[in-house]
Amino acid sequence: MSRSFDLPDVMKAAVLKKPMEVEIEYRPVPVPGPDEVLVKVMAVGVCGSDVHYYESGRIGSFVVENPMILGHECSGIIAAVGENVTRFKVGDRVAVEPGVTCGKCEYCKAGRYNLCPDVVFQATPPYDGAFVQYFTHRQDFVYPIPDHLTFEEAALIEPFSVGLHAANRADIKPGSTVAIFGLGPVGLMAVVAARAFGASTVIATDLEEIRLNAAKSVGASLVFNAREHDVVKEIMDYTNGRGVDVAIEAAGHPATLQNALASLCRGGKLMIVGLPAQDNIPLNIPAIADKELDIYGIFRYANTYPRAIEILASGIADTKALVTGRYSLDEAVRALEEARTNKANNIKIMVYPNEE
Amino acid sequence: MSRSFDLPDVMKAAVLKKPMEVEIEYRPVPVPGPDEVLVKVMAVGVCGSDVHYYESGRIGSFVVENPMILGHECSGIIAAVGENVTRFKVGDRVAVEPGVTCGKCEYCKAGRYNLCPDVVFQATPPYDGAFVQYFTHRQDFVYPIPDHLTFEEAALIEPFSVGLHAANRADIKPGSTVAIFGLGPVGLMAVVAARAFGASTVIATDLEEIRLNAAKSVGASLVFNAREHDVVKEIMDYTNGRGVDVAIEAAGHPATLQNALASLCRGGKLMIVGLPAQDNIPLNIPAIADKELDIYGIFRYANTYPRAIEILASGIADTKALVTGRYSLDEAVRALEEARTNKANNIKIMVYPNEE
Amino acid sequence: MSRSFDLPDVMKAAVLKKPMEVEIEYRPVPVPGPDEVLVKVMAVGVCGSDVHYYESGRIGSFVVENPMILGHECSGIIAAVGENVTRFKVGDRVAVEPGVTCGKCEYCKAGRYNLCPDVVFQATPPYDGAFVQYFTHRQDFVYPIPDHLTFEEAALIEPFSVGLHAANRADIKPGSTVAIFGLGPVGLMAVVAARAFGASTVIATDLEEIRLNAAKSVGASLVFNAREHDVVKEIMDYTNGRGVDVAIEAAGHPATLQNALASLCRGGKLMIVGLPAQDNIPLNIPAIADKELDIYGIFRYANTYPRAIEILASGIADTKALVTGRYSLDEAVRALEEARTNKANNIKIMVYPNEE
Amino acid sequence: MSRSFDLPDVMKAAVLKKPMEVEIEYRPVPVPGPDEVLVKVMAVGVCGSDVHYYESGRIGSFVVENPMILGHECSGIIAAVGENVTRFKVGDRVAVEPGVTCGKCEYCKAGRYNLCPDVVFQATPPYDGAFVQYFTHRQDFVYPIPDHLTFEEAALIEPFSVGLHAANRADIKPGSTVAIFGLGPVGLMAVVAARAFGASTVIATDLEEIRLNAAKSVGASLVFNAREHDVVKEIMDYTNGRGVDVAIEAAGHPATLQNALASLCRGGKLMIVGLPAQDNIPLNIPAIADKELDIYGIFRYANTYPRAIEILASGIADTKALVTGRYSLDEAVRALEEARTNKANNIKIMVYPNEE
Repeated sequence: MSRSFDLPDVMKAAVLKKPMEVEIEYRPVPVPGPDEVLVKVMAVGVCGSDVHYYESGRIGSFVVENPMILGHECSGIIAAVGENVTRFKVGDRVAVEPGVTCGKCEYCKAGRYNLCPDVVFQATPPYDGAFVQYFTHRQDFVYPIPDHLTFEEAALIEPFSVGLHAANRADIKPGSTVAIFGLGPVGLMAVVAARAFGASTVIATDLEEIRLNAAKSVGASLVFNAREHDVVKEIMDYTNGRGVDVAIEAAGHPATLQNALASLCRGGKLMIVGLPAQDNIPLNIPAIADKELDIYGIFRYANTYPRAIEILASGIADTKALVTGRYSLDEAVRALEEARTNKANNIKIMVYPNEE
Repeated sequence: MSRSFDLPDVMKAAVLKKPMEVEIEYRPVPVPGPDEVLVKVMAVGVCGSDVHYYESGRIGSFVVENPMILGHECSGIIAAVGENVTRFKVGDRVAVEPGVTCGKCEYCKAGRYNLCPDVVFQATPPYDGAFVQYFTHRQDFVYPIPDHLTFEEAALIEPFSVGLHAANRADIKPGSTVAIFGLGPVGLMAVVAARAFGASTVIATDLEEIRLNAAKSVGASLVFNAREHDVVKEIMDYTNGRGVDVAIEAAGHPATLQNALASLCRGGKLMIVGLPAQDNIPLNIPAIADKELDIYGIFRYANTYPRAIEILASGIADTKALVTGRYSLDEAVRALEEARTNKANNIKIMVYPNEE
Repeated sequence: MSRSFDLPDVMKAAVLKKPMEVEIEYRPVPVPGPDEVLVKVMAVGVCGSDVHYYESGRIGSFVVENPMILGHECSGIIAAVGENVTRFKVGDRVAVEPGVTCGKCEYCKAGRYNLCPDVVFQATPPYDGAFVQYFTHRQDFVYPIPDHLTFEEAALIEPFSVGLHAANRADIKPGSTVAIFGLGPVGLMAVVAARAFGASTVIATDLEEIRLNAAKSVGASLVFNAREHDVVKEIMDYTNGRGVDVAIEAAGHPATLQNALASLCRGGKLMIVGLPAQDNIPLNIPAIADKELDIYGIFRYANTYPRAIEILASGIADTKALVTGRYSLDEAVRALEEARTNKANNIKIMVYPNEE
Repeated sequence: MSRSFDLPDVMKAAVLKKPMEVEIEYRPVPVPGPDEVLVKVMAVGVCGSDVHYYESGRIGSFVVENPMILGHECSGIIAAVGENVTRFKVGDRVAVEPGVTCGKCEYCKAGRYNLCPDVVFQATPPYDGAFVQYFTHRQDFVYPIPDHLTFEEAALIEPFSVGLHAANRADIKPGSTVAIFGLGPVGLMAVVAARAFGASTVIATDLEEIRLNAAKSVGASLVFNAREHDVVKEIMDYTNGRGVDVAIEAAGHPATLQNALASLCRGGKLMIVGLPAQDNIPLNIPAIADKELDIYGIFRYANTYPRAIEILASGIADTKALVTGRYSLDEAVRALEEARTNKANNIKIMVYPNEE
């Protein structure tokens, strides 16, 4: 094993003890296994799921039963490498794909490893996450990033991957028309993804001005506030009554989902990215059949990281502006509270575990 | 124009004058245009949509406003050909694809002509259908059938096409596991279609024994009566808890739709073929996202007829047993009434406009 | 029929009488049929195929047996419309897709209308082309262009369509690596197409500096002169020994084709766009099998025009610089001679039939 | 670790010492690792590659440098299981997929694990194969077989997988027309695969009557001897001049490859399965472009075993007749010699390492 000279023995971790209670603890710096690297965490985004676990200790059937470390959108520096690791050396700058899959089940073998039932995913109970100074990770889910990509941008690759996966499953092509409903970080990164796939028209809608402005800044052709407009009517007008090829629902609201469906052209595709609070939401079934619509569930992503790095590194969009709050690891509670209580003024909040 | 020697000038037609009122009228035998053929109608199936128009004069936004001839599942004999027709000669036995599309819109050009907004579809208002002795049709939507395929089998190609289109969009492959919900003629022909695509396991469910038996006879691996079994549990048990790759909903019922969705494996596909009476039906959205399910609307079919003829002609299934009632054109009302009122004892009722 | 006020009765046409002999003739301005428009031709590109027919009177099995008008890359203004035409009015600026297909054969119905055996394609014997002041065309193969797209750019949509069709069949995605061999207008427009589909790396190679510079100007990441470099070695070095995802051969040379094949990664795709002079060219078959390569023939294009217009109108690349010569219709011979004899200094030569 | 009661310590292995020299040696029975099973080998097919290595010690760049055990088409019984193995217990009957892939490279993650550069493939140097009484294998590449599938049939799943992979990549559908060139075991199993995918017409051609008869018996619609017929002409006649949708070349001969290409319809697909002795074979490039043909290399297979077992277990074809010679492990040399020298009278020769 090769390791950094200044590697400490002990590190800080922000531990969710129970709902609404996060404490900084000291833990031993872990030692990478033969196929693992040790990542010194430089930036971690606060995800909506982190806020959910923090607030209520659960998301659907996933329940936090023991103290757990949150955070799974992260980038860092290689601090040590296991004996079989050849792709990295100490000091390399990297982005981390948070889910480590088995590589052996029917889904992994078919290329849909996001459906692996045995995945170990950071900050999904019972697995610890990245609000910590160091963690180990299997090397094949760690990716080098170029020098000019910042750690913040690299941490955004995680939500960007969801957008890319949705755009890829939707088969967005140059000239496609796309509407994106809900402009949290995933929705905003889906704007970037749609642009990367060549969409000529990307309409974006949300309730918050800060998010609409951000959508504009990352490449939306048209934005409007769903509080003030009849969304479906606007989209139909803009597309001369045809509707859009692809609608991406990233809000997780029943009405938004129904609007997204109603805004499609014949043969159009609805991508379900947002998770609604309730299970059953009425959808217009005859419209699905008569217009021969496709609806695709989107669960995380697969095979996105290398291309996501290429795309963001190409300068396609200025995503730095999406970061609206920056906190040290000691301030992890403040970061989570800010994300929880001040949605109107925030897009993505970042934690920097190795900076004071 | 070339025409049959014994072609009459006048023919019978069964005309829907208003809901629940069909009358036999005499009309002139039409003359084919340059690219058209005249079809002497030998067999026409009674479709659920025919019964709907007969009963209530409408289906959704399609309203019968003037007297209209029903029927669109048909086969016959070429009785005359227009001057540009080269593919047919008088006497050829044929199956007729009922929708004539424009060939020029974005959907036609992209190969999805079932979405053509300018389609002229038999027995969809305001266009007349096939409960008539002769009609004209553009030659490119008429297909020769081999001698050993009966006119009844050829008429079944229309509902078979819906099943094939669903199986094709679902990308059923050898070894796929498929569950079919609702065993009307379309559901039953979907059993045949799934088999044709190589599905190793085809589970079929309905409420009526006659249909379950028919499903067995056309190739279902397993059938069960949804009145007596917990459908989702049975499917999960049979697939060792995995669920099926593809679920085809051909019943048009909310609970059936929800069961179909719940019976899928991760990454599975739900095909919506049945049209429910109500518009909005609650679906489990988090399940769609978490299991990354696909849902596909199915509207009619495209590019199915030649392959459908090949498949049925190969003897893949004995579909003749699906025909449970046979009527002359004069008895068209009886045929419609039987289909309307005696669902438990019927599968497909046929009308024979050129037999007494 | 509606028509422009100043429409003349007679017009000029540049007619290929026999190989190497083009004469200006006067012909009646044609009258559009019910579904046709009359196009006043504003710009027509000289294609390699025009030069071939001009030089030798044939391309493969296509032989010019009677006087024929060349030219098929064109844009113009609607000068009259047939009685059924609703999509256009006199004065509209348009791009023209030169092949009018039947809409009824198996290929048209399946969405691959470029394979229609009954296509009427401008300037492919025996059909006349666009080196003329006016021609009629079926309205569904004519497309409106926005005001800020020049007629020259609109004429370039034809070669651009070939590039788009290749990029589409190759399934180029964001992050794909692409190498383009041969930088005539089609190869150069393929650079633009690869970029439009999101390719992160587009390597371009040719023998002529003027074309390499043009490739740079329309978005190639890396260009090199095949006269001075070992192409395969350069590509392998640039991709760290992996090879590219997609190679587009647009030169039509045996060695280039073999290099294109050799530059692919495992599972990569070779697009054959260029037509070599000889029929049989040796390819490395074990490499195709062992690396599981795909090879796709590219014949013209289908369903590209609307998206091509969107893409060029978005300002993705400055294609105006590709036009290296401009001639009036009277100078058609000079245009063809310049294209034929001065390849090192030309990329695309344009003819303007309605300017002096 | 759980193991069979009667497991010996020592076993026989047929070892290729150098070209044309195979000796029976005694070796210790290997012990499975934690994720491995020990397979008692019941049937192993002799593959053409085994004969090549036996005859010349190499195939292309693969060179046998040290003594190596041949054989990779095999089935058997679980004789011991490693500590992490949950899918199997001692006594289970299984088919073995011979290539164990890394699960971590770009190809494995994308679902194309047959392109994994780090695969460990039985009987491909330097890895030992299955002409042995016992071997260990990672459990996820071992598959249970139903009781009614014989070990011989289960051993045939390996060559069947190549056919299935080709049929899958070719997107064969019900109604497709397919021609198969070269009827060794892979070609014959490709006949079965094409049928499983629903091909309505499967034309098969070879030089040997025994193979043509076998093709008939496993489902070919039409066979003819290429020695006596003009293959392309026959196929064109049979398809009314259209050509076939898919041609599978499994002979590895230049002329056959060219015929396969020439027998395609517009938009058709050529699958290259056979490996020719020479590298460069001339192909008609203008035909590839003008008819917009696809050519796909086929390298082994991925994700075929479970579906292959389902298909063969369904009784789709009587493949037992393909086994034309049966030998004990002691007779391994005779098996290889028979396969090498008596091609006209053999299809598939089997070795039974645990029978006298």
